[in-house]
Amino acid sequence: MTDKLSDTARDTMLAPLLDGGWAMVEGRDAIRKTYKFTDFAEAFGFMTRAAIWAEKWDHHPEWSNVYNRVVVTLTTHDVDGLSALDAKLARKMDTLAG
Amino acid sequence: MTDKLSDTARDTMLAPLLDGGWAMVEGRDAIRKTYKFTDFAEAFGFMTRAAIWAEKWDHHPEWSNVYNRVVVTLTTHDVDGLSALDAKLARKMDTLAG
Repeated sequence: MTDKLSDTARDTMLAPLLDGGWAMVEGRDAIRKTYKFTDFAEAFGFMTRAAIWAEKWDHHPEWSNVYNRVVVTLTTHDVDGLSALDAKLARKMDTLAG
Repeated sequence: MTDKLSDTARDTMLAPLLDGGWAMVEGRDAIRKTYKFTDFAEAFGFMTRAAIWAEKWDHHPEWSNVYNRVVVTLTTHDVDGLSALDAKLARKMDTLAG
């Protein structure tokens, strides 16, 4: 789960995420997405739900929030790049954001 | 509460915050502080408590979190600078981080 993603895994795991609003981060082996909600309460509600899964999986995002927007960056510091955990958390966040 | 801080108010309201770890943001009339906690759960717990007050007061921070760190920037967009609301939320956050 925490090996760096192989080229094959990138095709199968990352491609659907990149089609769904995630993008590679310039200069880093990381993915980023901006979620927009109706207001702060909705945005922070999303963060709270995501935080519980992040803690449960011991895999934490880099993220920022300004009012109704949440910008999430995912990478795996232990492998200095993307792992399956990032894809798993990204999929979960997409589900939680509805 | 949402007027831009006068010079006098800056002396009385901002000075104690700047002594307590807040700093002016370069190029903006805003203040910023980095809080460090023992782990993610403590950091996000702080954010959750602060979010409730921010929503209650309808005054929201710009903030980011990476694992045990939370960086908070406060300013009042309506007045294009610092207001008493920023000082009030900064003091509350310091208490909550306690």
